[in-house]
Amino acid sequence: MKPTDAFVGPMLTDLYELTMAYGYWKTGKERDKAVFDLFFRKNPFGGEFTVFAGLEEVIRSLQAFTFTDTDIAFLREGTVKRKPELEGGFEAGLNNGFVREKDGGYEEFGFDRRGVGAWRPVRPPTGDLSIPGPMAGCDPAFFDWLRGIDCTELKVYAMPEGTIAFPRIPLIRVEGPLCIAQMQETTFLNLVNFPSLLTTNAARFRLAAGTDKGLVEFGLRRAQGPDGGISASRYAYVGGFNGTSNVEAGLLFGLPTKGTMAHSYVASFSGLDDISDPTIKSPDGTERNFVEMVLSYRSRLGYEQTHEGELAAFISYALAFKDGFLALVDTYDTLKSGLPNFICVALALIAAGYKPVGIRLDSGDLAYFSKETRKVFRKVDKQFSIDLFGALTIMASNDINESILLSLTQQGHEINVFGIGTHLVTCQAQPALGCVYKLVALNGHPRIKLSDEVEKMTIPGRKEVYRLIGTNRQPVLDLMVEAGTPPPKAGERILCRHPLNEAKRAYVVPKSVVPLHRCVWDGRQTYAFPSLDTVRQYVIDQISEMRPDHMRAINPTPYKVSVSEDLFRSIHEIWMHEAPITEIG
Amino acid sequence: MKPTDAFVGPMLTDLYELTMAYGYWKTGKERDKAVFDLFFRKNPFGGEFTVFAGLEEVIRSLQAFTFTDTDIAFLREGTVKRKPELEGGFEAGLNNGFVREKDGGYEEFGFDRRGVGAWRPVRPPTGDLSIPGPMAGCDPAFFDWLRGIDCTELKVYAMPEGTIAFPRIPLIRVEGPLCIAQMQETTFLNLVNFPSLLTTNAARFRLAAGTDKGLVEFGLRRAQGPDGGISASRYAYVGGFNGTSNVEAGLLFGLPTKGTMAHSYVASFSGLDDISDPTIKSPDGTERNFVEMVLSYRSRLGYEQTHEGELAAFISYALAFKDGFLALVDTYDTLKSGLPNFICVALALIAAGYKPVGIRLDSGDLAYFSKETRKVFRKVDKQFSIDLFGALTIMASNDINESILLSLTQQGHEINVFGIGTHLVTCQAQPALGCVYKLVALNGHPRIKLSDEVEKMTIPGRKEVYRLIGTNRQPVLDLMVEAGTPPPKAGERILCRHPLNEAKRAYVVPKSVVPLHRCVWDGRQTYAFPSLDTVRQYVIDQISEMRPDHMRAINPTPYKVSVSEDLFRSIHEIWMHEAPITEIG
Repeated sequence: MKPTDAFVGPMLTDLYELTMAYGYWKTGKERDKAVFDLFFRKNPFGGEFTVFAGLEEVIRSLQAFTFTDTDIAFLREGTVKRKPELEGGFEAGLNNGFVREKDGGYEEFGFDRRGVGAWRPVRPPTGDLSIPGPMAGCDPAFFDWLRGIDCTELKVYAMPEGTIAFPRIPLIRVEGPLCIAQMQETTFLNLVNFPSLLTTNAARFRLAAGTDKGLVEFGLRRAQGPDGGISASRYAYVGGFNGTSNVEAGLLFGLPTKGTMAHSYVASFSGLDDISDPTIKSPDGTERNFVEMVLSYRSRLGYEQTHEGELAAFISYALAFKDGFLALVDTYDTLKSGLPNFICVALALIAAGYKPVGIRLDSGDLAYFSKETRKVFRKVDKQFSIDLFGALTIMASNDINESILLSLTQQGHEINVFGIGTHLVTCQAQPALGCVYKLVALNGHPRIKLSDEVEKMTIPGRKEVYRLIGTNRQPVLDLMVEAGTPPPKAGERILCRHPLNEAKRAYVVPKSVVPLHRCVWDGRQTYAFPSLDTVRQYVIDQISEMRPDHMRAINPTPYKVSVSEDLFRSIHEIWMHEAPITEIG
Repeated sequence: MKPTDAFVGPMLTDLYELTMAYGYWKTGKERDKAVFDLFFRKNPFGGEFTVFAGLEEVIRSLQAFTFTDTDIAFLREGTVKRKPELEGGFEAGLNNGFVREKDGGYEEFGFDRRGVGAWRPVRPPTGDLSIPGPMAGCDPAFFDWLRGIDCTELKVYAMPEGTIAFPRIPLIRVEGPLCIAQMQETTFLNLVNFPSLLTTNAARFRLAAGTDKGLVEFGLRRAQGPDGGISASRYAYVGGFNGTSNVEAGLLFGLPTKGTMAHSYVASFSGLDDISDPTIKSPDGTERNFVEMVLSYRSRLGYEQTHEGELAAFISYALAFKDGFLALVDTYDTLKSGLPNFICVALALIAAGYKPVGIRLDSGDLAYFSKETRKVFRKVDKQFSIDLFGALTIMASNDINESILLSLTQQGHEINVFGIGTHLVTCQAQPALGCVYKLVALNGHPRIKLSDEVEKMTIPGRKEVYRLIGTNRQPVLDLMVEAGTPPPKAGERILCRHPLNEAKRAYVVPKSVVPLHRCVWDGRQTYAFPSLDTVRQYVIDQISEMRPDHMRAINPTPYKVSVSEDLFRSIHEIWMHEAPITEIG
């Protein structure tokens, strides 16, 4: 199966992966047996957990890892800039692209200082317009080798998609020929960083809103590009959202899609004359004049001062979606116009045999407006001796973030569904997760990256990871051990050490032990892609099993990440061996 | 020409665009003559300017705006979740997807609480696995209409790509049938918001770094998805960067690509035995043992305590890229190991007839290390009576943002090139631009969106926009006038009013007047896509012409956005007419 995003392939990478590949190949090291760990160093959003996501696309990228002739040609020979324009061009009557031939030379389209487009002479395409191949000058045999490689010799181990993860624990471990394993770095990081960040963000919004609220992702327009939007919709669902406004994501992933109307819709109606056909047909087949029904409620309720264009907009929408009437009520004035107009139309719908859905608030004090709305709804129920309005949906949107959700919960509110855009999809509170991809072993020997910053050091060696589970099925800590050593056993006392701080040690007697890594690729896919619903449920289940103090929004307790006694000794030996002793003075 | 991102099309939209379309269509308003403005309300990053970008992709999206049969089928009938898995499945030996038939029922693949994958019974696909069409129940004739529409009846006016823009001034104005113009909203916003934000961010980095520094975009791994990375590379270049590490972006857009080595490369070498062939061939054809040459410099300089694996890595890289040797020097210890190792290899390269490029710093105090490095380089020049090291490139990366650039400039540093990732590509300082798309006129009448928040009000009516230019070609202010009224003229005194605050007025006598909007689409493309280099130069030129106090990073002066006297009166009349008078008490 192909990657979901058409850009994913071996060229979606940093150039240095290819220059390093050439270096390895040239030195004859390209088939050295390498182990790389993909991990992050710090949980995002000031929290103490991260949800690992993106694995399915990582596996799809492995399947798509072959260089095409076009790729190779670009690397060797470069390209001519904006070639499609040079070749294709516009229809007659317009100029034929951004560069055209003129009197044996070339002209380029550009803007003068007044911002007016104009043609000006440029040097011919062979000069100005071509860029050299990024790998020009490399041995031709290298390109033959590059053209032939794929991922059949790699083994990839990973946590299942949706696993709650912690700093320094490898999310993915890649084993295989140095060169090919190295070349996965940028692609893997790109495919894991944002999905994991977004899923974590969505899970945090879910924790803040509570399990009884609806959460709909509304962020496509503010997302970081088309794919940023598609990914956001997908992983918001995995993190616990109920649906999205994004139609393409609905189509691609089978997500529930939601949506009603924008302010433009309301503003496009001037008055009741805009309603071309006022007839409504009830489920029993009778036909009535819906506008008259609405106006009768309007006069009975004394709501004649509301905006008539808005009323017309609501009527037209109710006629189009008789069982899906949800009105945006803040175009002119929420309490003076939007809400009364909604009530008149909703009452008429009920009288015609349908059930309205509710309202959406998109500005102002959401807690206050929602409480006022609920009060008015209950009054209407009482006045008309019905029991319908009190339970209508109150939806709220408008720049909602995690803090606002927490504050709303604290204040009390009557909102049933939140529409959340910008802060969710761009992860505004922290728009990047810092996963890294580090060489940890080569030809059976542990490798290390030291650093002037101790936090940037890696934990060397090929490692297995276990989650130790205590009472109530609560995870107690994650333990890394050297691969090949016996795994920790349930019921046995295990010494767990902080990887860096030698004073921090704990004995744990786990009730059960969960191996976190499994083989997801051994030259071909060995991991059945679970459905998004399965992953979503897995996330929800794990969150409910974690100790709440690890998961809270403010000052959460760090979850312990530890290493075995053997691994601790091995790490510190390597550090001592590799790090130079600084001479001062 | 197709959109660059394959996801772009009429389905990359919020569902409410389609439900509104149905409402319009049902009411017979779908062909009302609408005018929509796309604009933002606040400049990003605490600044006072924004660079408009994304226009080319907007125009490409207009060309791609037709619904396919698959789209229509999804909207009407929904879909079966994860269809590819149900149809395709894996190769033999593995289960054939996430759902399989079993004993007349179905099983789904999922994880138990220990994180172990297992099959469990699910209801058949017709129950659990299908989702209903988001537009199920709509009139079948609507879908026929939807299948037939395109953008040939639209007119689109816009500022040229790369124009410096300000709040409330429409970047794009769309005119045409209400329904089709409305349906462009989400797509246009998605295609303008991130490119404009990113280009602005890049331009700010360029202002902070100064024009004499190299800026390379390194952000693919931290970008918000594959397309987030591709867009970031493209628009960073437009905003004034010199190149990218992103190979795919290099291929797609003809961008200069840059890159050398990661820590993994350095860490993968244990010692000089890793060098399979130590021979270097000089330009004159002579062959020598390069390792011996390096070791001779090493002993001459007393650098024997450096990390030998790192030295081997540098030697191998220099042998692979004899004219492109740039070494990452902080894997073990920048000043004690990385820099001395680089110097030995660089001296040997010079002796063999080649020219090394320089070093990259990726951790620690970049200003200090760069100054120390430059000092050592100058010492080497002196010691060997050459004039080469002093001018070598010092590149720096490591979580650089705009403030760090400003601070480095203030401290003084010796860095020539900055590699910038996360903060640039995710726009960490503010990851979303708040462009909106508002109906401003219908059938020749101005329309307005009022709001409980005065900042959310729109400026109604079909408007033309002019930039008034003063002495030294400096823009003085932008002026909106009602379309169809005479444009302001150079040399004439013009009363310019603040759109909201009636006390704020100014007379301006412009030296010249630049109309900012031009027709870019009148049923087909009428705007020649300029090359990225042309747009980039246009951005650079404009920035150099702006008054510096508008452009500075800290407390910049707002640029004036104004309306004509006529437009001011018209706006305020409409506001008075549409806004209800609140009753208090």
